[in-house]
Amino acid sequence: MGQQATLILDVMGADRGPIEMLRGATLFARSKLAPGTKLIVVSAEPEQTKTQAAVELHPALKAAGATLEILAAEPLPSSEGFTAPLDIFKRYPRCSIRIAMEAAKAAGPDCAMISPGTTGLVMASATFTLGRVKGIARPPICTPMPTRTGDMIFLDGGSNVDCKPEHLHQFAVLAHAYVKAMKGIDRPRIALLSNGSEEYKGNAQVKEAWDLLQADAQLNFAGYTEGHTMLSGDIDVMVCDGFLGNIVLKLAEGVAELFTDMLRTEIKRRPLAALAAQLTQRPVFRSLRKRTDYAQFGGAPLLGLNGNVVICHGRSNATAISNALAVGHRMVTSGVTAGVAKAVAEHHWGNGGA
Amino acid sequence: MGQQATLILDVMGADRGPIEMLRGATLFARSKLAPGTKLIVVSAEPEQTKTQAAVELHPALKAAGATLEILAAEPLPSSEGFTAPLDIFKRYPRCSIRIAMEAAKAAGPDCAMISPGTTGLVMASATFTLGRVKGIARPPICTPMPTRTGDMIFLDGGSNVDCKPEHLHQFAVLAHAYVKAMKGIDRPRIALLSNGSEEYKGNAQVKEAWDLLQADAQLNFAGYTEGHTMLSGDIDVMVCDGFLGNIVLKLAEGVAELFTDMLRTEIKRRPLAALAAQLTQRPVFRSLRKRTDYAQFGGAPLLGLNGNVVICHGRSNATAISNALAVGHRMVTSGVTAGVAKAVAEHHWGNGGA
Repeated sequence: MGQQATLILDVMGADRGPIEMLRGATLFARSKLAPGTKLIVVSAEPEQTKTQAAVELHPALKAAGATLEILAAEPLPSSEGFTAPLDIFKRYPRCSIRIAMEAAKAAGPDCAMISPGTTGLVMASATFTLGRVKGIARPPICTPMPTRTGDMIFLDGGSNVDCKPEHLHQFAVLAHAYVKAMKGIDRPRIALLSNGSEEYKGNAQVKEAWDLLQADAQLNFAGYTEGHTMLSGDIDVMVCDGFLGNIVLKLAEGVAELFTDMLRTEIKRRPLAALAAQLTQRPVFRSLRKRTDYAQFGGAPLLGLNGNVVICHGRSNATAISNALAVGHRMVTSGVTAGVAKAVAEHHWGNGGA
Repeated sequence: MGQQATLILDVMGADRGPIEMLRGATLFARSKLAPGTKLIVVSAEPEQTKTQAAVELHPALKAAGATLEILAAEPLPSSEGFTAPLDIFKRYPRCSIRIAMEAAKAAGPDCAMISPGTTGLVMASATFTLGRVKGIARPPICTPMPTRTGDMIFLDGGSNVDCKPEHLHQFAVLAHAYVKAMKGIDRPRIALLSNGSEEYKGNAQVKEAWDLLQADAQLNFAGYTEGHTMLSGDIDVMVCDGFLGNIVLKLAEGVAELFTDMLRTEIKRRPLAALAAQLTQRPVFRSLRKRTDYAQFGGAPLLGLNGNVVICHGRSNATAISNALAVGHRMVTSGVTAGVAKAVAEHHWGNGGA
């Protein structure tokens, strides 16, 4: 039986709707991590959710010795899609993200909150409800990314658009502790994303961040990485602001998708090539998808909070949600958040502390 | 016979060396654009270059009724690879880029300079030797990029790392005139690269640029585009600073390369799939490469200068160089640079002029 973990899943706000989220929870319930877990589902359609959960999710959890609770939230009007997250946060105290975050606060450290909702709204709720780790000005999104040899994380994946060099330094310190706890890498190689590898490159922001990271003897600073070298597998952590991080994430996904579509189109245009692909290459494409699909990573943790929060892609499917629940579970059992807070408290900041 | 154009090719500074550059010139000499062209090759190994040009390039030009001149430059010590471009510019007045740029100045408007050398050094030489168009503070690199439906340009591709919102506005005005002259699109759709499509998104820089572009009635402003939507083909021009542009360019290339490598590896691991690929899918991969290979675009023009300059990828092969010469030729025959200067002079800037 695994360590007791409470996982709180917000099933609202995803492109594919609550039913797909429940399917993801069911996949998780059937995995080896499920035993002993307490799953709390937060839904703005609680009656419907209860009925749907009774079909597959509840039996699967029961079989694993895990429990289910369903919390009611109020729906967000769809007209609010173009409103700034902070305004929504203030106006809708009973939305699913806020209810889920309050449940996370009440459940304490052995709990993780998982949401496919608007990043800004999750971030605002997390900051207000759980609070930031002392010394961290802005909690970043710690995003996994496939590389040539495996995967790395980069942060900030999109939470803080305007960052000062000190914020980038804080991201590096958070990531150092996170990778150590979650992947067992003692001195993760940390690079700054820039427009060249030479020291004279960089904009004003990353030049200053270079100086801070270079002067920090507790970090394993690897210098600048570039748009293409970041994929080489030579680094464990890439640091950038959330504006750049958001663009990097979406562009990498976009190029991979465009490439796949072009390949499919070119194959389909040629009957013989299409037949050959169907007869012999299905495992090729399956394996390729597995190596590059965001669903395999599941979700991206927020770092620097007094609690475990995992943000999922708005386009998450059941596999992604199941994997995001696994990330939350691993955060609880590894005690990563307490470890990160301790590392931040004990860090010799130089001038970089908040 | 085409319009008389002088094309000045710097054959130094490319990863594959001067011989590959001469091969590219030969490809161009055999194309339908060559007749009437005057090709000036600038080399730091002029005797060797002369001997090599005698084998293929010179006969090909002669056959097309085109002429060849070879100018001597002095080599850059390879130890200078990590020196800032402006320092190199000052210390090596006889380097190939500076000699080529001076030849371009002497040759006047019916001339284009093409170089695969260090971007910063080409930019510094162009700015000092040819001069900027009045009203433009920082000449951007106008980079072509494949999309789902064809291609677009984005700027700045890497020349100006720290940009103010006014600079982004100037890039948009330059691109508007450039696309009109080169592609015949009357009101090109121009978008700003940001971290979301909603108006409340963006960092401080692009929020201000949004206001400037929104207020400019002469531009066809399409709002924000994102890391993945930029590839959709819905826009003709994407505007961003050179720091972001450099990262976008390298990441897009890097992801496409990584994806190709992964595909190749997965196919090779399966003998039947590999055999099928070899027998039936060669045209698939050829067509895919043709749609995504930077070599097809050849080069990226610098905009906002009193002259035509095309920057090539350091990794350029002969095809890329031939296509870059074609871009330079098209800039001369379309009179784009005079058109852009006129458009800038007549633009109602509001507060965005330099």
